[in-house]
Amino acid sequence: MPTSPDCLKAVEYSRANRQTALDGLVDLLRYATISSQYPANQAEFEKCSEWLATRLVKMGFTQAQVLPTREGGAPAVYAEWKGAGEAAPTLLVYGHYDVMPVDPLEEWRRPPFEPQIDDRAIYARGASDDKGQVFAILCAAEAWLKGSGSLPVNLKVLIEGEEEMLSPHLEALLVEKRDLLRCDGIVIADIGGLGPEVPLVEYGNRGNCPMEISVSGPSKDLHSGTYGGAVDNPFNVLARLLAALQDGETRKITIAGFYDKVKEMTTQQRQYLAAMPVTDEVGLYLTGAPALGGEQGYPLKERVSSRPDFEIHGITGGYTGPGIKTVIPAMATAKISFRLVPDQDPDEVFQMVKDYLAQLAPPTVRLSFTLLGKSYPATMDLNDPVVVASDEAYRRVWGVSPVFIRGGGSEPVVYMFQQHTNPAILMTGFGLPDDREHSPNENFELRQFYNGIEMMINYFAVYAALAKGASLF
Amino acid sequence: MPTSPDCLKAVEYSRANRQTALDGLVDLLRYATISSQYPANQAEFEKCSEWLATRLVKMGFTQAQVLPTREGGAPAVYAEWKGAGEAAPTLLVYGHYDVMPVDPLEEWRRPPFEPQIDDRAIYARGASDDKGQVFAILCAAEAWLKGSGSLPVNLKVLIEGEEEMLSPHLEALLVEKRDLLRCDGIVIADIGGLGPEVPLVEYGNRGNCPMEISVSGPSKDLHSGTYGGAVDNPFNVLARLLAALQDGETRKITIAGFYDKVKEMTTQQRQYLAAMPVTDEVGLYLTGAPALGGEQGYPLKERVSSRPDFEIHGITGGYTGPGIKTVIPAMATAKISFRLVPDQDPDEVFQMVKDYLAQLAPPTVRLSFTLLGKSYPATMDLNDPVVVASDEAYRRVWGVSPVFIRGGGSEPVVYMFQQHTNPAILMTGFGLPDDREHSPNENFELRQFYNGIEMMINYFAVYAALAKGASLF
Repeated sequence: MPTSPDCLKAVEYSRANRQTALDGLVDLLRYATISSQYPANQAEFEKCSEWLATRLVKMGFTQAQVLPTREGGAPAVYAEWKGAGEAAPTLLVYGHYDVMPVDPLEEWRRPPFEPQIDDRAIYARGASDDKGQVFAILCAAEAWLKGSGSLPVNLKVLIEGEEEMLSPHLEALLVEKRDLLRCDGIVIADIGGLGPEVPLVEYGNRGNCPMEISVSGPSKDLHSGTYGGAVDNPFNVLARLLAALQDGETRKITIAGFYDKVKEMTTQQRQYLAAMPVTDEVGLYLTGAPALGGEQGYPLKERVSSRPDFEIHGITGGYTGPGIKTVIPAMATAKISFRLVPDQDPDEVFQMVKDYLAQLAPPTVRLSFTLLGKSYPATMDLNDPVVVASDEAYRRVWGVSPVFIRGGGSEPVVYMFQQHTNPAILMTGFGLPDDREHSPNENFELRQFYNGIEMMINYFAVYAALAKGASLF
Repeated sequence: MPTSPDCLKAVEYSRANRQTALDGLVDLLRYATISSQYPANQAEFEKCSEWLATRLVKMGFTQAQVLPTREGGAPAVYAEWKGAGEAAPTLLVYGHYDVMPVDPLEEWRRPPFEPQIDDRAIYARGASDDKGQVFAILCAAEAWLKGSGSLPVNLKVLIEGEEEMLSPHLEALLVEKRDLLRCDGIVIADIGGLGPEVPLVEYGNRGNCPMEISVSGPSKDLHSGTYGGAVDNPFNVLARLLAALQDGETRKITIAGFYDKVKEMTTQQRQYLAAMPVTDEVGLYLTGAPALGGEQGYPLKERVSSRPDFEIHGITGGYTGPGIKTVIPAMATAKISFRLVPDQDPDEVFQMVKDYLAQLAPPTVRLSFTLLGKSYPATMDLNDPVVVASDEAYRRVWGVSPVFIRGGGSEPVVYMFQQHTNPAILMTGFGLPDDREHSPNENFELRQFYNGIEMMINYFAVYAALAKGASLF
């Protein structure tokens, strides 16, 4: 697909105005929008959301507004540009302007909210996650609007302020603003490539079902000299219950029906996965384990992205100080989680676990279960123009196709958007593995920022063409 | 067996001199001999051991001396009386003058080293454990020496200062002083009856083999979103290994050969056990468990005293804070212990556990094991005069025979004395379940103190007669 003259004008504009884009990002990064400290730092959120709304107007957007969320949550920012007309498709850009905490502060070489720039990168909390990435998309839109006078698509922008807190009020907002947010596809830039030469598109992610299981026995801690042999030790029972959840040979989860809703990967998905440069040797290097483990019968790349998983994260109760205290603890509690894949449902899995363990537990103990959150697994349609367009756009700027993978982690917002807005989502991003997201000295490479702007300029054009029925080949 | 006139004189003397005995105990309790704080409080130990040596001379003993222990440990006190002649048997009395710490101090109604007396009891740290009990034996000897002019047995006294620290230097002392401590039987009064009407003789105890088992996998904690399915989680493996140590139905330990050296109780032992007033209902009341557990095929009283046992005390590693953190921990460590019964050996059991788990562990993890101490199981001969004599002596003072049981806890000193001094040991005591040993407001009932003195007065006479070939019946 040839690059259109208007698209070239937008690229030209963006190259001539890199300093303006960078200055804007510096301004955006000065706001200390740490969502876990909200509302103590409410003023920062008010100033930052106002700044974004004002900037969106300057870029050429209309309807720019701060959207309050329910229950006094941090506000979101909305804007739109509808100049492409009703025949053109509409994209919704989602991003977040809140950031992670900055502890340990003493490890930062510069204060986290005083952005610093060197030849390579811009340094500040939020530089990569997600202010820098979402701002790159906004700059791409601005380049179209100012370089060629219009965009090839209608654009809506939603930038929320609670993503690092797992977006507690986003779903209500999506429901409430369903009409305002109506679109043909959604673009999220909040991840990173596998390296500067290997851009990434994530077309799915695993859900999660984290829980606590408590086993209680005696009414108080007992001395095992006096009572050892009288009662079942809750830790001994807990070990048996946890061991019973997973087969020691196949590492399959042993709950009947657990895999009933698990979809095997499609042929197309397996073909895409084959392009991902991750071997067992890489896995051993990255984990430092004596040998790789996990479910038998599936290669590493599939196990960490497209297969469910059971993990124990910690066990509390009893004596954990130095040496030994020969106590029979009154209670033992395990924190565990199950990673889920489409079409598994975290509520159903929680119930399965409860039923299975209740049936296995002896009458010498009592069990209790607490669900510690839940997120749903999701996949996106690889053949929707919103995804397909990214391939051509990346090839134009990076010279290579992105790697298409399903992510192993959980992205609650994807499922929310799919449920309430539109299932067609492009999840990509311009970060890199060394950006130190969530850590001190977070940074965003300038080359990734500028290339990200150009990729998105091209993406708007390619998506518009594909949505009108064009073919890439 | 009738009570001899000399024995009656001793009893008479003790009744006429109760105030002197009590005053002596008050003096002894003023020394703050907390062994876990040694040598910071070395002066207290010096003063207390000197006081004991001086008091023993006043009581009529000879050779009274402070015995230093190796490596600068707290000293012991020794004294003897050999006036019964070579034809008479020799008993060794063992006790300890060190005490437990006093925290939390604010819960004491009176300072722990300012003894207080009311109609019922004497209150101070060490009142019951063990100053009051060992002092009762010394007062019984004094009553013989001053009331009738001699004792029917030769007597040796060893009072150590490190029992609450698990007697780290006692074994070396027993070896070094083997000739000095030679005897026909040993008397220890450091436990309590089941109630004021139910005196107790403990003729055995379980050993213990406490250890840590560490399972390490990845070289650092990993995020389970990214790596879940790539490696075996050390906690998942640890749960399987711990579960494999014990059968979930029979609760038997599953290591091959673990029970090979376990001796079943003898008919005589079972007859004695039948006298112990502990039913399943009592077990449920004392433990507060929903139902009793433990090894199938053995009654509660046998399970807690004469059968080995496996307990998990705590598990460290991973995330144990509030909520969830979906980490695959680099390492998981369990603190566990095995209670052992004759003739199991803690070193052999440690090796068995290591071999068994090493063979079960997958190649995805590494195991390490740390032995956290060890104590040997022991039983005493129920038919030795040193034990038999206690029955008549208790019946004379309490009006009932004591309950003869094997204790479930571990008493390292018993095994040391059996190995190096003499296997014939009477383990009894005059404490009560409410004495608050090791807790604030420790106390010792005056009735138990005075009755304890009289019981020991009678015991010396009965033992001397039995040792010369007399029969109780």
